[in-house]
Amino acid sequence: MAGESVDILVKGAAVVPVEPPGLVIEEGYVAISDGKIVGIGRLESMPSYAAEEVIEAKGMAALPGLINAHTHVPMTILRGVARDKPLKEWLHEIWKYEARMGREEVLAGARLGVMEMMLSGTTTIADMYFYEEEVARAVLEAGIRAVLSYGLIDMRNWVRDEEKTERELRETERFIKEWHMAEDGRIRAAVAPHAAYTCSKEILIRSAELAKSRGLVLHIHLSETRREVEEVRSKTGLSPPDYLESLGVLGPNVLAAHGVWLQEREIDLMAERGASVVHCPASNLKLASGIAPVPELLRRGVNVALGTDGAASNDTLDMFREMRLAAILHRGATLNPTALKAWDALRMATINGAKALGLEGEVGSLEVGKRADLILVNMRKPHLATSHDVVSSLVFSASGADVDTVIVEGRVIVRRGEPTTMDREEVVAKASEAAQRLGD
Amino acid sequence: MAGESVDILVKGAAVVPVEPPGLVIEEGYVAISDGKIVGIGRLESMPSYAAEEVIEAKGMAALPGLINAHTHVPMTILRGVARDKPLKEWLHEIWKYEARMGREEVLAGARLGVMEMMLSGTTTIADMYFYEEEVARAVLEAGIRAVLSYGLIDMRNWVRDEEKTERELRETERFIKEWHMAEDGRIRAAVAPHAAYTCSKEILIRSAELAKSRGLVLHIHLSETRREVEEVRSKTGLSPPDYLESLGVLGPNVLAAHGVWLQEREIDLMAERGASVVHCPASNLKLASGIAPVPELLRRGVNVALGTDGAASNDTLDMFREMRLAAILHRGATLNPTALKAWDALRMATINGAKALGLEGEVGSLEVGKRADLILVNMRKPHLATSHDVVSSLVFSASGADVDTVIVEGRVIVRRGEPTTMDREEVVAKASEAAQRLGD
Repeated sequence: MAGESVDILVKGAAVVPVEPPGLVIEEGYVAISDGKIVGIGRLESMPSYAAEEVIEAKGMAALPGLINAHTHVPMTILRGVARDKPLKEWLHEIWKYEARMGREEVLAGARLGVMEMMLSGTTTIADMYFYEEEVARAVLEAGIRAVLSYGLIDMRNWVRDEEKTERELRETERFIKEWHMAEDGRIRAAVAPHAAYTCSKEILIRSAELAKSRGLVLHIHLSETRREVEEVRSKTGLSPPDYLESLGVLGPNVLAAHGVWLQEREIDLMAERGASVVHCPASNLKLASGIAPVPELLRRGVNVALGTDGAASNDTLDMFREMRLAAILHRGATLNPTALKAWDALRMATINGAKALGLEGEVGSLEVGKRADLILVNMRKPHLATSHDVVSSLVFSASGADVDTVIVEGRVIVRRGEPTTMDREEVVAKASEAAQRLGD
Repeated sequence: MAGESVDILVKGAAVVPVEPPGLVIEEGYVAISDGKIVGIGRLESMPSYAAEEVIEAKGMAALPGLINAHTHVPMTILRGVARDKPLKEWLHEIWKYEARMGREEVLAGARLGVMEMMLSGTTTIADMYFYEEEVARAVLEAGIRAVLSYGLIDMRNWVRDEEKTERELRETERFIKEWHMAEDGRIRAAVAPHAAYTCSKEILIRSAELAKSRGLVLHIHLSETRREVEEVRSKTGLSPPDYLESLGVLGPNVLAAHGVWLQEREIDLMAERGASVVHCPASNLKLASGIAPVPELLRRGVNVALGTDGAASNDTLDMFREMRLAAILHRGATLNPTALKAWDALRMATINGAKALGLEGEVGSLEVGKRADLILVNMRKPHLATSHDVVSSLVFSASGADVDTVIVEGRVIVRRGEPTTMDREEVVAKASEAAQRLGD
């Protein structure tokens, strides 16, 4: 007698559902139908299924697709610019290159970045850039999930350009109208005032109102560098989080990237408001911004997600490498070997990211009823095969290059390490041409 | 007219010879004969060669094989043991497992580790373990280069076991006799008193004499943890480096792993004695040992090499990931974006490693007359293809998974990412069985 009909049945993997915390099903299955998870458990107690596609996954680990909660995808074509420069010179070089980026370059860079991310196991991203509709097109093509935003900037050196305030807000409204909830909600729009030192008080307040009224994430850079904190304090008399709080910006929809310089009281404020912090350890190290107080953020109840930041300041978009770095960095920095556990890092890269994006009901863990965003990691590679602990190996040993299969909303978008939705060679070639044009 | 006969001609790669510093040949060649480099330069001015094998390397980067200057290879089969434990509990768990490791397990772990390293671009290793002849056998089989040592321990809790002193030294003498200069010098022996807190004064002195008289590297752990420094100080009245100096141990043949807690005056002492420090950033972070003062070491003239340490405390043996971590970590930790440049990290992983092992006349850079230890990295991968700077991408973006070809002494031991000297499946299977036996 045939069993329940399903679209995909993943069989025999070590399943790490992330929820409940700590659970590893050594030999498990995941059943997928209509883009959702309809069954999960131990292989030996699997009900009978009639599956359209069976993925034999013995020797693999199955886990939720990773969530890159802060990035600027098109920056892939800026890799290697201003290699060892101090932050200010680095920024000026980057801006010089960005000024040469038109729609075509943004699209080419976004396609490459989205492909790199899906190949390395990321299924959801939170992005902020200009020409963001080109990023949306790349996301659409690749088949990943995304919370996208046009980065609002209406102030330079604390001088507001009033006309720009209006133009930037109109651009955001247009983007929301065109892209929010596209593809049955696979793409969502967010409102993204860039930072307290690049956005006027007016645009910060109106961004917050817009995000709240539309139920959108507010994506912002916060307390990334000491210089930023000093600047905001000297201009407003307040620290960046206090300044945002005074304008009514902080709330549960806030996605605050970096948070390197948050002080204890400010951390408590973030926790009270239910705001999320996106930890970007590689970028913070490379640009010498510092080391975010992640153990303290977690201890005080802040939801901490994980992000790569843009490729120019990382220089990869590999969330496995980011997870590994987060897991080891804070132990060394605090001299406490239990400052951040393997499971903490894994949750930051999955369910915490989902919470930060308001998607925890849909993704971030493998549970019946959630969307089927999952990845399979090949655990038979030489550096993974002998492990005494699956989660330890996923966090400390694996890299994005070990990802074999990626499924988003029940659709296989990477199979045996190759994208099914994009032409790898063509994407790389177009992006290389775009990068070359910028360098000329 | 046919040109000079050579064994291998690598054509069209972006060549990064490491010496002279800063040089990148955008489109170059490397000619190899009798295991040595006989030609290197720009493709357009390449002389005529009659090559037995031509490796078309357009789209690749060619650089010296990486040198992992501190590792304990067989520990691959301990990956995932004691995941998030404090150091003392971690060590006790590791010791419990190690006590179950016989020759067969050491060999199985060593073969896996050596294979993992060659696949990820490492061509030379400095190892320290027990049953070290099994590591030598794995090195022989794989075809990599190695400086191997039996780890000497004759003291526990500062109580010396006099009989063990003799036994350990005899074991080292035996190892040197059997393996030093094996395979035309591809394998060298070193003398390895484990550390100041596990070795008696007698064995430290006699190790130093032995190493000096035989012209061998002395491989030792030094100032790895704060606890070690405090312990050595309370027992000897001196810091670890001062204590070693008082016993006549420090010299240009000293390979001192970690050096996390070295103070300025001690750094000057290391520089004066010409001793090398092996930076192991991932292990130091994961075990919460701290962050070594690498910018200060370099500024004060110490030769700093790079190592992964054992797989149980890393948990990979991927020198590309180690190089990336070293390059970003010190910027963030010192808030100085130029604290360590991409080139510094690349030199640590190549020529500095060669110097530390007394092999700088033979390997560590691509120069005519040196042994042909080189690797090709596939720069057409999505995360590498658009780079504006080859060295930046090698250091910040690449991982060991991007290595395509590995040549040691003119012999291709990895081709298109697959080992030519070992059976990947068999090595993985044997090591998995060994790991499983330990876990039982």
